[in-house]
Amino acid sequence: MAAELTAHQLIAQHRPTLDQALEAIRTRAYWSPHPEHPKAYGENGSLGMAEGKAAFDALLGTRLDLGQPGTDDWVGGEVSPYGIELGVTYPHADIDVLLPAMRAGQRAWRDAGAEIRAAVCLEILKRISDRTHEFAHAVMHTSGQAFMMAFQAGGPHAQDRGLEAVAYAYVEQVRTPDTAEWSKPQGKRDPLALTKQFTPVPRGIALMIGCNTFPTWNGYPGLFASLATGNAVLVKPHPRAVLPLALTVQVAREVLAEAGFDPNLVALAAERPGEGIAKTLATRPEIRIVDYTGSTAFGDWLETNARQAQVYTEKAGVNTVIVESTADYKGMLSNLAFSLSLYSGQMCTTPQNLLIPREGISTDEGHKSYDEVTADLAKSVGGLLGDDARANALLGAIVNPDVKARLEAAAGLGEVALPSRQIENPEFPGAVVRSPLIVKLDGARKYWENAADGDDEAAYMSECFGPVSFAVAVDSAADAVELLRRTTRDKGAMTVGAYTTDEAFEREVQEACLEECAQLSLNLTGGVYVNQTAAFSDFHGSGGNGAANAALCDGAFVANRFRVIEVRREA
Amino acid sequence: MAAELTAHQLIAQHRPTLDQALEAIRTRAYWSPHPEHPKAYGENGSLGMAEGKAAFDALLGTRLDLGQPGTDDWVGGEVSPYGIELGVTYPHADIDVLLPAMRAGQRAWRDAGAEIRAAVCLEILKRISDRTHEFAHAVMHTSGQAFMMAFQAGGPHAQDRGLEAVAYAYVEQVRTPDTAEWSKPQGKRDPLALTKQFTPVPRGIALMIGCNTFPTWNGYPGLFASLATGNAVLVKPHPRAVLPLALTVQVAREVLAEAGFDPNLVALAAERPGEGIAKTLATRPEIRIVDYTGSTAFGDWLETNARQAQVYTEKAGVNTVIVESTADYKGMLSNLAFSLSLYSGQMCTTPQNLLIPREGISTDEGHKSYDEVTADLAKSVGGLLGDDARANALLGAIVNPDVKARLEAAAGLGEVALPSRQIENPEFPGAVVRSPLIVKLDGARKYWENAADGDDEAAYMSECFGPVSFAVAVDSAADAVELLRRTTRDKGAMTVGAYTTDEAFEREVQEACLEECAQLSLNLTGGVYVNQTAAFSDFHGSGGNGAANAALCDGAFVANRFRVIEVRREA
Repeated sequence: MAAELTAHQLIAQHRPTLDQALEAIRTRAYWSPHPEHPKAYGENGSLGMAEGKAAFDALLGTRLDLGQPGTDDWVGGEVSPYGIELGVTYPHADIDVLLPAMRAGQRAWRDAGAEIRAAVCLEILKRISDRTHEFAHAVMHTSGQAFMMAFQAGGPHAQDRGLEAVAYAYVEQVRTPDTAEWSKPQGKRDPLALTKQFTPVPRGIALMIGCNTFPTWNGYPGLFASLATGNAVLVKPHPRAVLPLALTVQVAREVLAEAGFDPNLVALAAERPGEGIAKTLATRPEIRIVDYTGSTAFGDWLETNARQAQVYTEKAGVNTVIVESTADYKGMLSNLAFSLSLYSGQMCTTPQNLLIPREGISTDEGHKSYDEVTADLAKSVGGLLGDDARANALLGAIVNPDVKARLEAAAGLGEVALPSRQIENPEFPGAVVRSPLIVKLDGARKYWENAADGDDEAAYMSECFGPVSFAVAVDSAADAVELLRRTTRDKGAMTVGAYTTDEAFEREVQEACLEECAQLSLNLTGGVYVNQTAAFSDFHGSGGNGAANAALCDGAFVANRFRVIEVRREA
Repeated sequence: MAAELTAHQLIAQHRPTLDQALEAIRTRAYWSPHPEHPKAYGENGSLGMAEGKAAFDALLGTRLDLGQPGTDDWVGGEVSPYGIELGVTYPHADIDVLLPAMRAGQRAWRDAGAEIRAAVCLEILKRISDRTHEFAHAVMHTSGQAFMMAFQAGGPHAQDRGLEAVAYAYVEQVRTPDTAEWSKPQGKRDPLALTKQFTPVPRGIALMIGCNTFPTWNGYPGLFASLATGNAVLVKPHPRAVLPLALTVQVAREVLAEAGFDPNLVALAAERPGEGIAKTLATRPEIRIVDYTGSTAFGDWLETNARQAQVYTEKAGVNTVIVESTADYKGMLSNLAFSLSLYSGQMCTTPQNLLIPREGISTDEGHKSYDEVTADLAKSVGGLLGDDARANALLGAIVNPDVKARLEAAAGLGEVALPSRQIENPEFPGAVVRSPLIVKLDGARKYWENAADGDDEAAYMSECFGPVSFAVAVDSAADAVELLRRTTRDKGAMTVGAYTTDEAFEREVQEACLEECAQLSLNLTGGVYVNQTAAFSDFHGSGGNGAANAALCDGAFVANRFRVIEVRREA
């Protein structure tokens, strides 16, 4: 254990980074303190490529003892989507012991104030950053992401989202001063004068329920927003993706202890197979905040039942891309092909419904019919994934058998424009690797206005999570906008994309997105994809349609995680 | 109708006030642009005392036609707590016509942007301010507040709370810039570059449900927070307190129209006796925000059932004052006497339970037994209200028969330390004017720990809204803190007060308030009272205990009334 960290040291070390983050969320220009390139690690205390791999390998088959109170068993059983059994076991908690223990340190954590809490959070993120290579393997072997994506999305990008939440939490807490002198004139009499103290106080214990596909990226915002606002945080990982969050909890506990705080402010709640402790935890009176990423069904359950808590959910949506016209047909196709392929479409932001006018679109390569656009897109995906090594690096593995089953069933939903292909992974022969499936569907207005489109409408109006997209033929561009509105209103959407060279049509799509509250990417043809958002600049979700009740990250994401208590006395 | 107001004029006129408000919520020092003294009005376009009275008198017996679409009837029936029948009728809405009409102007209102919306809101507040004398009578004759209180709390203080909400709403919306240029380095390759536009978009239509006692003071924060963030606002007043909010809607519609916006962005929903339209309105899909002040039962109903909306509630609580010791016995007694008397205790912030150690307290006038403190407080209230004119000016009238019935029943709850006295009001012989009742109860720990205190505990653990306070004898000062915690946790509290000269005890009470999330006033002996909070400086409620799920006013009160939509494209 290193020497104790003083508040002064922590602030001196991390205040400049915090200030840069505060500036970034104000300007929303590009910024990140976390390097994206694997070779940037290995010096100044961070693990290099080989060290990270070795650290991960050393974890396999071990018991990860976090030193938590109330540990009554050891549980585990993660199997990598790449076929490896991780064999790591984690503490199982007696929550009647653990929850009270988590409250013990809250007063000191509250009294530390916003700046020290932010500095401690930044130290936690710094140590996680130093272990990015180790975390990359942990994310890869729980989510099925390919290594480079696990490295970037699970590492620096997740750390960025955590830091962004700390910055929002900090600035929200210091909007009200610590003290104020209030003096109200009373004409000729003495003024009324009060001294007021303002203290941000936490809600209580926050529960962060992790997901299978992005345990760190989707988990860090809630975790750090709650911790930075003075709450204790109980981390309930997805049973298939425990390791990345268990390591996170380990680092947080280590830093808290070194900084003189109670390590039990952050704890892990791993569970036995089928135990389903999330419902129990989420409705405990001690739990006052819940962050959740996952299915709509359970997100809705939490919003309905965890009434003692502030509940922040990211659920499922149906993401639309409208293809109306383009000045860069090739760029559009390759951009879309990448979006559909990345991590086998297992992102809440991946486009599902590609709405294409039945009569075709105008492009820089001339008019293209619906069939041509669909075939060319299929070709583009095929080309992108033609080389198996490249396909493996882009697709990763199918995260769980449910996704595989859904993919297989989807091929029967309509005419297949591009079949899903199985790809061998020489390094991990056990991995289930699949290229995207594209199915042609009919989105004629006469069908969806009369709810008589049968299977087609049922297909494109449901989220089909995984490498499945629908090329939906619509009667007109105007109908595409109407269907976009309807889909977003009824099903929610994390992202919307559109390709058009027509300014009036662009305004129509924008207006639809403003009214239905969906984030819009226009005419992306280069190296930025509709399914990727950058911390400090892009909002992830809007919090205004059915796909999520919160956005990453904004004032609303942090402002209700604490309250401000005023003590006033005569001056 | 005056000449059209341009955005430029409105901003030029109101930006300095907005800037001062922004500075005030940052420093929380004393500030208000709205004069408290009745004589400050009557020049520069504002109505003076006689003009205000004349304007109010001219309203009596008339139809207040707001020019709203979908008006299918005229309803009214307000009877002043001072005995006058107002005879004003208001439009009754066919909500299937009115709600769609309210949406028609939302796009232009959204596109106007945060600054213009703020300026329009400030113009509305300015015109309300100019009519403060007229509003004072409207508030007086619906709430039963005495004139001076109706003038101040219903006028400048309510306008302050509205302006405060506009300031919070404005600053929240401009935290994200309108546009950003994002450029991410790519080593030797060209950077990835995006242009991003960010637009605050409203949730939809907001419903503001007004209360009987403070129609403007409790109504303006939600109304202006929603309007300033781009939402349309439907105002559903309490059937006994329609006029102040109907006038508010009238002014808002007038200003919106003059500024070139659709007046239907603000509308009134008056109802027939017993119609109970709040439930219907609150669960309509168009309604995306609800603000409510009133009973716990209906507030809980809204939180449970209006799931399609963001719901902000101020409900009931049980407010405690701990009397442990004092260095200014007379000051404490007179301060408490005023707090109990003001508006006959019909404030959500009035102390109910005065916890006094059974063995008495130490004071600058020597040791005082529980009985002495109680008797001296009764004497102090008696002295304060000894003169009928002064009593009438302080007490106002009992707002409705429920409060009167509750007051009469409360006299049977225990030994009466101070009976409630009926006071004649020569100006309004029909007014029901009552002085506060103080009842002695036993709060021994052995009772409340075993839930066997019977009637005493049932009494002091329920809100008894009106001029009723309980002098609760507790076994020790430490027990007082425990009972404060328990009451606040189980019943909620808008305010807590404490009197102590013991620093260690003061810290204990502070800690209890920080942990139970209640706003604390310490040792008030002068002209500031525990039941009064000042906009721009004091928080009203905490949003962290059962009395209210929101505080007036903070970031959380405004941040979720809008969402930010991003449109990004390659630069």
